[in-house]
Amino acid sequence: MSEGSTDQGAGLGSTTLAQVAIVVKDIDASAKRWADVLGMAVPNIITVAPGSEVEMTYRGAPSDAQAKLAFFSLGQVQLELIEPMGGQSTWQEALDKNGESVHHLAFWVEGMQKSVDFLAGHGVPMIQRGDMGANGQYAYFDAENPLGVVLELLERERETRAEPR
Amino acid sequence: MSEGSTDQGAGLGSTTLAQVAIVVKDIDASAKRWADVLGMAVPNIITVAPGSEVEMTYRGAPSDAQAKLAFFSLGQVQLELIEPMGGQSTWQEALDKNGESVHHLAFWVEGMQKSVDFLAGHGVPMIQRGDMGANGQYAYFDAENPLGVVLELLERERETRAEPR
Repeated sequence: MSEGSTDQGAGLGSTTLAQVAIVVKDIDASAKRWADVLGMAVPNIITVAPGSEVEMTYRGAPSDAQAKLAFFSLGQVQLELIEPMGGQSTWQEALDKNGESVHHLAFWVEGMQKSVDFLAGHGVPMIQRGDMGANGQYAYFDAENPLGVVLELLERERETRAEPR
Repeated sequence: MSEGSTDQGAGLGSTTLAQVAIVVKDIDASAKRWADVLGMAVPNIITVAPGSEVEMTYRGAPSDAQAKLAFFSLGQVQLELIEPMGGQSTWQEALDKNGESVHHLAFWVEGMQKSVDFLAGHGVPMIQRGDMGANGQYAYFDAENPLGVVLELLERERETRAEPR
């Protein structure tokens, strides 16, 4: 086993896991249940901006989807709960297909487009993106078939908006 | 958000995530794909002892199930791949039901039985256990309904063999 590192010469751009996310039907109820089981405080529920305000695209087309989020800090990793609020998104697709279940594993990267290109070359296409805050962005990658789970990349300071290849 | 801690006065016994595990059909192929995508070396594939040698129980009955495992270190958290090798287990059940997908989130605890009792009181029953190495043990908990994922607890030095409540 090798140690994790955020600076990889090869690969998707990081080997330090940042988030594990679960799609849920009712985030208030789920956040309460997780808080009880973990022995932690119930986190704030955040409503993200609608897709039209964050240049969101889903499978190549603009989407106005929206979601509620909650985060628990489990050491280095955040446990993220996601309640889709309608619209076309990988969140809604996963909830409809699999019910409440783990949706993605997330990693922070820099220069996201080169990670997008790398993953496309490994059969892992980008399926959703959006801006995040003033300068950041996120993107999801359909890795369910080769890897058993969706991947997410997160970038604090975007150079360019990530585009599918 | 509060910081993670391994010493919790309440809760399952830890808030530091230790492992994210994915059940797979062919661990050699999956480990190679993950290694390529992460830019890491292909890890060793470990075959665990059969259930009859580790006091394994599954849903209350002895089981002789067995699995192959592989681990990637992603910082604090290990990504674990699990290929069930037949026999009655939560690994096989999950692969049959959901295909290749995230199976569990794992935490290290001490004095596992009190965590078992706590989780049972929160509607999260223990469904599988086994000894691990000379002195350790693991146990799985059916949290799919309330939490969207199976939980695992790991203990390095067992006081007693964990029993369902």
